[in-house]
Amino acid sequence: MDAALLLRRLEVLEARVRELEDILAIQRLIASYGPAVDGLDREALASLWTADGTYDFGIGDPLKGRLAVAGLVDLASHRTYVEAGCAHVLSAPSIRVDGDRAVAVNCSQVFVKDGNGWRADRTSANRWELVRTPEGWQVAARINRLLDGSEAARELLRL
Amino acid sequence: MDAALLLRRLEVLEARVRELEDILAIQRLIASYGPAVDGLDREALASLWTADGTYDFGIGDPLKGRLAVAGLVDLASHRTYVEAGCAHVLSAPSIRVDGDRAVAVNCSQVFVKDGNGWRADRTSANRWELVRTPEGWQVAARINRLLDGSEAARELLRL
Amino acid sequence: MDAALLLRRLEVLEARVRELEDILAIQRLIASYGPAVDGLDREALASLWTADGTYDFGIGDPLKGRLAVAGLVDLASHRTYVEAGCAHVLSAPSIRVDGDRAVAVNCSQVFVKDGNGWRADRTSANRWELVRTPEGWQVAARINRLLDGSEAARELLRL
Repeated sequence: MDAALLLRRLEVLEARVRELEDILAIQRLIASYGPAVDGLDREALASLWTADGTYDFGIGDPLKGRLAVAGLVDLASHRTYVEAGCAHVLSAPSIRVDGDRAVAVNCSQVFVKDGNGWRADRTSANRWELVRTPEGWQVAARINRLLDGSEAARELLRL
Repeated sequence: MDAALLLRRLEVLEARVRELEDILAIQRLIASYGPAVDGLDREALASLWTADGTYDFGIGDPLKGRLAVAGLVDLASHRTYVEAGCAHVLSAPSIRVDGDRAVAVNCSQVFVKDGNGWRADRTSANRWELVRTPEGWQVAARINRLLDGSEAARELLRL
Repeated sequence: MDAALLLRRLEVLEARVRELEDILAIQRLIASYGPAVDGLDREALASLWTADGTYDFGIGDPLKGRLAVAGLVDLASHRTYVEAGCAHVLSAPSIRVDGDRAVAVNCSQVFVKDGNGWRADRTSANRWELVRTPEGWQVAARINRLLDGSEAARELLRL
């Protein structure tokens, strides 16, 4: 086999490895959301979104920009959760990468300490739109709707 | 280093990358189950199983074939779940690949809206037998048993 | 392109693949904990920890050594869980590998059968310190604290 053929085969493998790295980076991004909000870590939370990325969770206007998202940890409703004891738990996402963009779908839940255990206070469908940036993969848009029987939530789940 | 040695080293790396791709494909397959059933997406659900793949969840006879599995979304019990608001949540699986076959073990839960939150209506052990097909990895057999204290569920968890 | 340049490029790719393998091995390690304890599989449980690895879950002294960790399945409290029907569910971890060591953060929950469903009896923050050993990645130290409003749990989540 000559060097040109070896090089071509190496390039193909490099592209495959890059896609695997992309998927694992997106897995980590989404897995970092729960620890960031439950740990009241504004900086970690901000770093997950692009500068102008959005988060629409169906209550009021969508949050716009990573600073607005980081402000979630200061909401009175979040502080009430955190003082009671809470966990934002995100299920393993189904991810599709397409070049410098990706879409992921999963379920998120908020468990809150309530008497003799933790109660699932929110259970939602999520669609994540992700982009490759110079700082790595980040969230361009996250949409979250309660799985309360409404079609809006079910629609989000169709990747 | 001559070209023959380089080629050998490249081949070894290609095999390692293929195993990583296999694991990530199986992760996505299992992560796609919840969105497919909760999103009432028959086509997506059917595509996860082989044409004659089975799903044995311990109630009645096992489902046989991808069309039978896709029919899950039309069951009266499933429609009752969906109307109330439900989430099928699958935990990150432990996966072992062996050539063109693989086995995965995880926990699945069904959360249903119930008053002031979502209640875990089912919590089960799962064993997934997977096969590589021309359309990618698919489910050849899934067995699911309630973690209700019975030995049958515990046995499934021993990979 | 000459062979020396090809070799260099191959070496870079080999290192990238090794890091991906590390992350997937750690994912599997953590995903194997639930099935091991819920399946009462002492051997599987012991194999996850190093010989002198620790598990500190905030009740009494930390467990020291893989045999002590494997003994978890014999605790009266664990047997009560198992007889009622229980699932240890671990969320997808956020993992950072640094050479032969790694740190992972996630949430763990214990669901126990309780009347008309399963109740989240424990919901905890976890920090895992992992090491590469001749037998693969293993747990050197796991710390687990209930997400009950205490700062100790929130602190663990800051990777």
